[in-house]
Amino acid sequence: MTGERGNGVCVLGTGLIGGSVIRAATSAGYDVWGYNRSPAGAHAARADGFDVTDDIAAALGRAADRRALVVIGVPLPALHPILTAVQKYAPECDLTDVISVKGPVLDAVRAHGLAARFVGGHPMAGTSESGWSAATGDLFRHAVWAIGVDPGTRPQTWTRVAELALDCGSVLAPVVAAEHDAAVARISHLPHVLAEALAVAGAAGGDLALGLAAGSFRDGTRVAATAPDLVRAICEPNAAALLDALDDTLRLLADARDHLAADGTLGPLIDTGHRMRDRYETLERPEITDIVPGDPDWLERLRAAGQTGAVLRKLP
Amino acid sequence: MTGERGNGVCVLGTGLIGGSVIRAATSAGYDVWGYNRSPAGAHAARADGFDVTDDIAAALGRAADRRALVVIGVPLPALHPILTAVQKYAPECDLTDVISVKGPVLDAVRAHGLAARFVGGHPMAGTSESGWSAATGDLFRHAVWAIGVDPGTRPQTWTRVAELALDCGSVLAPVVAAEHDAAVARISHLPHVLAEALAVAGAAGGDLALGLAAGSFRDGTRVAATAPDLVRAICEPNAAALLDALDDTLRLLADARDHLAADGTLGPLIDTGHRMRDRYETLERPEITDIVPGDPDWLERLRAAGQTGAVLRKLP
Repeated sequence: MTGERGNGVCVLGTGLIGGSVIRAATSAGYDVWGYNRSPAGAHAARADGFDVTDDIAAALGRAADRRALVVIGVPLPALHPILTAVQKYAPECDLTDVISVKGPVLDAVRAHGLAARFVGGHPMAGTSESGWSAATGDLFRHAVWAIGVDPGTRPQTWTRVAELALDCGSVLAPVVAAEHDAAVARISHLPHVLAEALAVAGAAGGDLALGLAAGSFRDGTRVAATAPDLVRAICEPNAAALLDALDDTLRLLADARDHLAADGTLGPLIDTGHRMRDRYETLERPEITDIVPGDPDWLERLRAAGQTGAVLRKLP
Repeated sequence: MTGERGNGVCVLGTGLIGGSVIRAATSAGYDVWGYNRSPAGAHAARADGFDVTDDIAAALGRAADRRALVVIGVPLPALHPILTAVQKYAPECDLTDVISVKGPVLDAVRAHGLAARFVGGHPMAGTSESGWSAATGDLFRHAVWAIGVDPGTRPQTWTRVAELALDCGSVLAPVVAAEHDAAVARISHLPHVLAEALAVAGAAGGDLALGLAAGSFRDGTRVAATAPDLVRAICEPNAAALLDALDDTLRLLADARDHLAADGTLGPLIDTGHRMRDRYETLERPEITDIVPGDPDWLERLRAAGQTGAVLRKLP
């Protein structure tokens, strides 16, 4: 552990994602401590041998003393009091987050005057479980970790956040906030909404239907097992982008429905869907190797590379 | 192997499901032979040591000589020529099928004058692969196998079909054709349509979106990897029931969409979806133990039990 890595990581929030950052960063050799609002939550993490307190002033005071990297791992609805505390106790620390939308987080960070040392992040990993007990040090292994390349990003902060994500076992997808949110509306938030609708429409067939359900229904409804408050906290802050994705989906389904009523076929949806699933399965992930943080146009170049699906597997 | 079990099983069609019946029934000790329309398909099964011909007259002639149970394992669009052959070569054989809709199959069986010795079946198992190469002897283990209890069913034929399904490792869900088709529209055909729509709406976000996709998108689109012709053959014959399920889904999604536009929430969908997924996860499967085929009202009693999600794990 050399340079700024050695300064430690302070994780605020010890749920599935924040807790997994604590475990993964600890395994990677970082000096890690954390905070959870609930004494019981903090205690659960301590009982597993991790340094977690329910005293946010203490956690952030230590971060300020150590110039630690602060990682915000609370759901979006809990963000504002966390930022207020960061502003108060650790305003000079490098700051990132692991929340599932980036635009609203960036807005809030700016509103708290913390944008200069902030780089947003979003590890694309999860389970339908939540809380510290579901957290694992392997959650981010081979996952894609979206990392902000918004205008004004400091190279030093960016590099530090990138190192943490890489050290947790992920590859990095550079993306600006608005494009991230438009993308995850389609591949993360929309799947949640469709899973919920499938669960309801399936159960409307009664116990006979649920009793006949096999793999397609089980897989298609899996994420509907996620705690409802968490699903809302993930999806609803991304309302505008999710509306676009939902409107597209409603058009696709209404077209299939109209075909079925008119001529007994599902129309073009099945061929197109199969082709798009194949595109996903066979997606090439070019590796970004030649863009050095701080070089001219580095942010724009990373953004352009990320738009093609390219990722960083290590820092140049 | 005693009684009629010893008379053997003739499987017409050696794709994923028919091929898996050949493998599973062989493992269970049945004398099994099969037919595939394509010489190459028949050869592939023979190369694996199974007795499969591309001569349907020969396969069915042997079935007639042996009073074998004939299992139709072709997609619905290929059903009519198969039934014509059964009518010609083996009209006195007990007959079942493993096709994913039951009403259209029953209609076709009746039209060919074969209803007296027919009991429909539908093992609720599959993968996104297809063809003989994907078939396995374990496919039906712990699966639910829907079995027809339509009016007029002969107890002897029913018992024989039930024994085969049980010997393949499944439990039996008794159901009449129309109720089967309404149920599978919701828990099998609708998941296919939603998976296709999700694949298209996700890919509309470009390679950036597909590159960020993780478990929820992967699971939600899994069955869109199924061959399009097979998806159509499974879903489109069940148009009326699938229309009902699609209309319900469109209403649920439009309601969530309208909530999102109006107040930034997804409305009641998330709570209801979570509750319905939980209902699926915790569904109790009472065991049917006391209904003897041929007893008074046995078909009605099996139907009523099946409607509650009850299953047979062995014959009484």
